[in-house]
Amino acid sequence: MDESNNWGRWGASDERGALNLLTPSTVLAATGTVRQGRMISLSLPIKGATSSPAPTTVPHLKGRPLPQHFMSVDGGDYAAGTRPIGAGLKMCDDAIIVTPHGTTTHMDALAHMWSGDQLYNGHPADRVRSYGATRCGIDKAGPVVARGVLFDVAALHGVPYLGADVRIGAADLEACEVEVRPGDVAVVRTGWPLAWQESPETYWSGQPGLAADAGRWLAERDVCMVASDNAAISGLNKHQGADESIEDDLHMIFLWRHGIYLAEMLWLEELAAAGQNEFLFIAAPLAIDGGSGSPINPIAVL
Amino acid sequence: MDESNNWGRWGASDERGALNLLTPSTVLAATGTVRQGRMISLSLPIKGATSSPAPTTVPHLKGRPLPQHFMSVDGGDYAAGTRPIGAGLKMCDDAIIVTPHGTTTHMDALAHMWSGDQLYNGHPADRVRSYGATRCGIDKAGPVVARGVLFDVAALHGVPYLGADVRIGAADLEACEVEVRPGDVAVVRTGWPLAWQESPETYWSGQPGLAADAGRWLAERDVCMVASDNAAISGLNKHQGADESIEDDLHMIFLWRHGIYLAEMLWLEELAAAGQNEFLFIAAPLAIDGGSGSPINPIAVL
Amino acid sequence: MDESNNWGRWGASDERGALNLLTPSTVLAATGTVRQGRMISLSLPIKGATSSPAPTTVPHLKGRPLPQHFMSVDGGDYAAGTRPIGAGLKMCDDAIIVTPHGTTTHMDALAHMWSGDQLYNGHPADRVRSYGATRCGIDKAGPVVARGVLFDVAALHGVPYLGADVRIGAADLEACEVEVRPGDVAVVRTGWPLAWQESPETYWSGQPGLAADAGRWLAERDVCMVASDNAAISGLNKHQGADESIEDDLHMIFLWRHGIYLAEMLWLEELAAAGQNEFLFIAAPLAIDGGSGSPINPIAVL
Amino acid sequence: MDESNNWGRWGASDERGALNLLTPSTVLAATGTVRQGRMISLSLPIKGATSSPAPTTVPHLKGRPLPQHFMSVDGGDYAAGTRPIGAGLKMCDDAIIVTPHGTTTHMDALAHMWSGDQLYNGHPADRVRSYGATRCGIDKAGPVVARGVLFDVAALHGVPYLGADVRIGAADLEACEVEVRPGDVAVVRTGWPLAWQESPETYWSGQPGLAADAGRWLAERDVCMVASDNAAISGLNKHQGADESIEDDLHMIFLWRHGIYLAEMLWLEELAAAGQNEFLFIAAPLAIDGGSGSPINPIAVL
Repeated sequence: MDESNNWGRWGASDERGALNLLTPSTVLAATGTVRQGRMISLSLPIKGATSSPAPTTVPHLKGRPLPQHFMSVDGGDYAAGTRPIGAGLKMCDDAIIVTPHGTTTHMDALAHMWSGDQLYNGHPADRVRSYGATRCGIDKAGPVVARGVLFDVAALHGVPYLGADVRIGAADLEACEVEVRPGDVAVVRTGWPLAWQESPETYWSGQPGLAADAGRWLAERDVCMVASDNAAISGLNKHQGADESIEDDLHMIFLWRHGIYLAEMLWLEELAAAGQNEFLFIAAPLAIDGGSGSPINPIAVL
Repeated sequence: MDESNNWGRWGASDERGALNLLTPSTVLAATGTVRQGRMISLSLPIKGATSSPAPTTVPHLKGRPLPQHFMSVDGGDYAAGTRPIGAGLKMCDDAIIVTPHGTTTHMDALAHMWSGDQLYNGHPADRVRSYGATRCGIDKAGPVVARGVLFDVAALHGVPYLGADVRIGAADLEACEVEVRPGDVAVVRTGWPLAWQESPETYWSGQPGLAADAGRWLAERDVCMVASDNAAISGLNKHQGADESIEDDLHMIFLWRHGIYLAEMLWLEELAAAGQNEFLFIAAPLAIDGGSGSPINPIAVL
Repeated sequence: MDESNNWGRWGASDERGALNLLTPSTVLAATGTVRQGRMISLSLPIKGATSSPAPTTVPHLKGRPLPQHFMSVDGGDYAAGTRPIGAGLKMCDDAIIVTPHGTTTHMDALAHMWSGDQLYNGHPADRVRSYGATRCGIDKAGPVVARGVLFDVAALHGVPYLGADVRIGAADLEACEVEVRPGDVAVVRTGWPLAWQESPETYWSGQPGLAADAGRWLAERDVCMVASDNAAISGLNKHQGADESIEDDLHMIFLWRHGIYLAEMLWLEELAAAGQNEFLFIAAPLAIDGGSGSPINPIAVL
Repeated sequence: MDESNNWGRWGASDERGALNLLTPSTVLAATGTVRQGRMISLSLPIKGATSSPAPTTVPHLKGRPLPQHFMSVDGGDYAAGTRPIGAGLKMCDDAIIVTPHGTTTHMDALAHMWSGDQLYNGHPADRVRSYGATRCGIDKAGPVVARGVLFDVAALHGVPYLGADVRIGAADLEACEVEVRPGDVAVVRTGWPLAWQESPETYWSGQPGLAADAGRWLAERDVCMVASDNAAISGLNKHQGADESIEDDLHMIFLWRHGIYLAEMLWLEELAAAGQNEFLFIAAPLAIDGGSGSPINPIAVL
């Protein structure tokens, strides 16, 4: 085996941030949280039907390029007379185009956001180029197999989903009475995808999300990832931007200063309905060389 | 919550095939196989750098459209004078184009191959159209959290990788002395990605893979998925085609007749080196509506 | 030279429809219409900046996948330290994704629309498959070098642009007092892109366009192509659909029954301001094998 | 009309380079070269069939991402039961992905290549970013309607195509006895696409092309564009790179120093067979905002 390749491996510890917390003993403990063996998918569907309105029927930030999914051979071709392969084999094949941020359930690489000339941990931002982020890209992350804890803030407030202007404070997280341990994935439910089911306009009117003090509260507890069902972890205004200063910006607090990964646009309704705050959380970002992130299908195992 | 959507859910049992074997008790037992908490990624990197030879440096079937990865904003733009957002936020963003079969580590949907007019379980092949497979697509699969067992056939034969013309028989699998249980993921190592490291021409000269009797042997044991480091589970000839008849074709045996999922083009070298035949196997296919498959980053947890 | 290829050639006459009218003598006569040598581009810009709202700032039908344009190496990379090639060469390179119908200035192939089981001229619709239209695709069209005549219906009605519910009748075309000859390109100005400049909502409220009797009037005069600045030649309702029956549908009249090509979403303001009804019209569709159409940059030479 | 948009317009003269030579009187004179009215397409086909080897069957530089063409609805879907629109309308729709340089007939923007920190005419290279070349992009070019002159160097040497190591000198161009006028498009035939018909390996063994003195000879004669059937105007070595220094590099001479546009990978066999050295040359690059170039279907009208 040629030792010079990095196939099947992730990055060195100085580019992995809080995922370094996933030591074998932490992972082993996480798998020990499974009680029933029930799996719940935490992802929205990727609808990419190019000549149909399907891609517009799932939550997304306005103006973002939506996924496109193309079949390059399908059952219709055989119905129209395409000859099977050899003695009768038929197949479908496809291609998918995804711009993950703002369009579907995804995980951010540490390189996704920064300020000044340096990425997380002092890596030079100049290494993020047209051919990918050669520092702190999603290929450096590796898999997430961790204890997950649910902060169901919508349930705490007794609403199906938080208002667009609600900013979740540290006090809200405290009030959820969740025990957080180093290396945990903090899953924060706002219920905001339900606003899409009201109407796209409601979804685009702003978004609820974490306030800076909640971000610091989680960072102090050494979580390895924060995952939420909103689009940006932080709240968003009606222009789909965050109002925080650089100091208080949630991406800066998590990705940039603490190397804590983010997962956004999750679907948390089944998980919330299960009524269990502790579970095994799994996310396996695609090993996209230099990616700013990856679409994921996160799993909770209860 | 609008109950009419299928966000976060997978398909009904008649479209899920062998993944129905992943009952809570099976999943719970699978998580119980974890001994050390060591995670190993089983995926090849996705290299999509469009103006560089990078995508051609990882194993792929000849002539397949390789992944393309584009940064729509990156560190170079800021170096060239692009203004940060607001008070100083900078970001990178990207898009990825993937045709998973034959180009990277991926999982096949049950709809991927069939013969005649029906998909797996009698679903009409006419429902596989340009806008996706509305029956037996990858969105119907759901996550794989299962006991994994390794058949290291290359090690059995005492070679770094099997020859291109080797067809793995049921006797080979027997000789691996692996205990298989219903709902397991059978991971079969041929070592073939190492042939790429010799040269692309070697990789394209054919591929080792399972013979039909090995396929039937596994199907009889009710595995939920077969995963291998070759490109097609079966062997391939120098034209990159399978030589089996419809009766003996491995995709027909697994996907079509038994609803057993396939994962191909894994990277199994670290797993093999770990010397442990039983582990927790995880794969979380993207919820691509009607997809013929999905790129995945499978994980073994030892 | 291998005579079996079709490089540089277009289709046989039974798949070319009205473009067969462009005989050498017709083309020669068309070039003779040039008086001043002034060139006017009749195309909208293709704005594909993926992480910016640019693509949404040009007219398009709601919900269509907008063009995406990616630089795979650019000046920013060099600013960030990418080494030049050899002794100092630098370059930019890019990729463009376009779904032409409804998103930018384009030309329809004869295969774009049909009814029943046959395309234009009885070609079987079953030959239009996932790998392209092997009959009547845009690769069969060949270039358009023709006499162009302008029907400035907006000017006729004394408005900057026609109302969304205006349907242009044969009488309107007659009233324009334009002399039409066989093989001409009939250019019909509605002014509708100016509605976009009012607001996207105005543009999406419907569209003015030709009525069936105007379609028949043009077809009787043996034009080779009809080009307009609206999105569908016909008018559109607020759902962006046409209200005509199959009998009266403009795509059926032109593409399907008469083999007359269509070009849509042109920008005709400079041409209209030039005040000249006769000119050399040029369109050179890309030779996309089996394409349903092609983005074009049509030219008027006055 | 909002005067602030640039729809339908091209760039100011300081970004258009030698296309400024196409004054009305030059264009008028060019149209006067038409004698017969015979149209010849000078483009290779764009074959993008994603699940077939078609894209690999046309000339391209090794390793470049080939075009992909996807039908998002087609005749096969209707054969499989998709319902027509309204009372019976059926349609096909598609998307095309193209990276023009090295894969198909295309035209380079002046921004495509440079040295140091400045593009052609001193424009800052820092303005070429991930969202496109805001200086000297292909949207600034405008259409090419010009007198074309053919230098059939392969015929001059009495061969179907020049050898891979042939570098065309000024003496070769002189020997073609072609009268060149300011604003002309110089079309140089090497015959190299015929090497593809021998075998892809022959095509990739290097390429014949212009030497630096031939480049200067053409630049002195104030042509507006140089078009050839090879992939890089200059010759290429077996690594598909040019051997010239920055001083002698053909892209530097033409694009960078003189603002002379380049069109590459044309198909010139029919034109050569027509035996006429003077014709109307037309190219209409797509108005891709900030594009490094555009696929084109150039036309000769004899």
